Amino acid sequence: MTDPKTPVPAPTLADRVRAGDPRAMARAISLIEDDDPLASGLVRALYPSTGHAYLVGITGPPGAGKSTLVDRLAVEFRRRESTVGIIAVDPTSPYTGGAILGDRVRMQTHAGDDGVFIRSMATRGHLGGLARATHEAAYVLDAAGKDWIVIETVGVGQDEVDIVRTADISIVTLVPGTGDEVQALKAGIMEIADIFVVNKSDREGADRLVASIESMLTLEEFGPHEWRPVVVRTQATSGAGVLELVEAIERFRAHAVASHVTRRRVRNEFRLRELLQARFLEHVDQHVLAAGEVDTLLDRITDRTLDPYTAASGIFDRALGRKETP
Amino acid sequence: MTDPKTPVPAPTLADRVRAGDPRAMARAISLIEDDDPLASGLVRALYPSTGHAYLVGITGPPGAGKSTLVDRLAVEFRRRESTVGIIAVDPTSPYTGGAILGDRVRMQTHAGDDGVFIRSMATRGHLGGLARATHEAAYVLDAAGKDWIVIETVGVGQDEVDIVRTADISIVTLVPGTGDEVQALKAGIMEIADIFVVNKSDREGADRLVASIESMLTLEEFGPHEWRPVVVRTQATSGAGVLELVEAIERFRAHAVASHVTRRRVRNEFRLRELLQARFLEHVDQHVLAAGEVDTLLDRITDRTLDPYTAASGIFDRALGRKETP
Repeated sequence: MTDPKTPVPAPTLADRVRAGDPRAMARAISLIEDDDPLASGLVRALYPSTGHAYLVGITGPPGAGKSTLVDRLAVEFRRRESTVGIIAVDPTSPYTGGAILGDRVRMQTHAGDDGVFIRSMATRGHLGGLARATHEAAYVLDAAGKDWIVIETVGVGQDEVDIVRTADISIVTLVPGTGDEVQALKAGIMEIADIFVVNKSDREGADRLVASIESMLTLEEFGPHEWRPVVVRTQATSGAGVLELVEAIERFRAHAVASHVTRRRVRNEFRLRELLQARFLEHVDQHVLAAGEVDTLLDRITDRTLDPYTAASGIFDRALGRKETP
Repeated sequence: MTDPKTPVPAPTLADRVRAGDPRAMARAISLIEDDDPLASGLVRALYPSTGHAYLVGITGPPGAGKSTLVDRLAVEFRRRESTVGIIAVDPTSPYTGGAILGDRVRMQTHAGDDGVFIRSMATRGHLGGLARATHEAAYVLDAAGKDWIVIETVGVGQDEVDIVRTADISIVTLVPGTGDEVQALKAGIMEIADIFVVNKSDREGADRLVASIESMLTLEEFGPHEWRPVVVRTQATSGAGVLELVEAIERFRAHAVASHVTRRRVRNEFRLRELLQARFLEHVDQHVLAAGEVDTLLDRITDRTLDPYTAASGIFDRALGRKETP
């Protein structure tokens, strides 16, 4: 299975990740974030040890209380003797901003508990790569033996919604009285929900929001064996409704064995395509384009004596050994 | 320049786009959104006619009033006898949601004015493709002779921020009293701003927000010839401050000729890489993988007898004609 020409995976780090060492997990995810040359060997070494964890994707508008909810979920999972990994790819999450703003308060909830590992993804600022890095970080937590992996994203970016859509279960969090359901509907995140959470459900308008989600669901048709999304009311700050949410997750998990396999396939296909793309660009950069050639091409594209399509075709043909010159 | 084997571009549609026909522009963008086989030939045909328009990227949190601001900008540009194209890739924008919710009210502002073309991008729901489609839609509006192209995105998704970052000018819109600047700082959108707009500046906390942006700017160093981001106060609903905003845009445009060229190069490089990736995946699907082979591979990846890296390496080698079998 292993190609002898590929770099030898770092066995020590992979072993330590498999043993659940939090420092090794943090280091592994940093390598992935930095797109370090060691990362692919590491993920390859870890991959056979993955598949145990159940991936929970949580999305929703900024201010929907996702981070607090994720905290509460983690507490509830821990109470059931399960281990939890949390990945925050939401730029508005307190985890993500923690390093800048010093508000790592939330993380303290689980401080000293090795059963909870929290990590924010700092991929902001690179062109692309968010979905790739998040998928690979999930492999790390999975290989480390976490039972549940919760990925929190803000539900208004395409990459962010795609990440949650390809999780084993997709949870959409909304808040009463904010017109959230209208925004969410526009953003297309209503369609991906297996469970709707109406958080801050003590607020005015909670009944109306629940009714509005329910009436939307009546517009959809569900087959006799299909999962019909459920609506759960929570107050993440007090913890009310979180038990019901965990039960709904368990019901979905027990119910949706078939769709579960399908989603993992979709996720793997997505992942395979990302890898192929990255591999091809690497090949082009290292073996096809001469030094300074990109600059010349970009000059010509910028002054419009060459269009990007023709340029791409030329590079592509050379990459496949079809021509010697562009 | 043109490869004789590639499909002949649709000349009629390209001609009509170049003539500024709004129906042709709408049709061209629909082809791009649908990833229609005709789209690449069309964009290739239009490309030599692009480069005239100035690309304004506007981002900010949901509820920052970006759409209203874009409307006002368009009115101001029209007053200066310039033509405007608007692309809304913000899922919370009234333009984008219009088709679902029937609130196409805003568009009526410019109804009957051929000098303003408004288009929302409905790429939501596909995996990837948002940046590609937006770039190509901008080519269409540029070739159609629009002087200004305004792209509105919500500033919390990676693709969305990248789109604005690679525009000719990047404007970040914030609102007082919402803690927006903290969220925006976390999301990394503060770093991309050439101009900060404090919208709804009649609200309490506007002075504090301006002061907080200014104090952040003092932490950065700017060379003697470097553009230092400016802060403009607006009330988009009344139009106050919009003239000042247009003047700030014009000042940046006049100032930043060098950085302008750099950004177009970055945009073109980004575009070239997207095309190479898409072209390679197309090749893999059509000429490398046998029927049903992806399914077999995904089965093996899903049951973990194969890891995605090894699978990708095998496909990649075959795509480059290195081996006959994986």
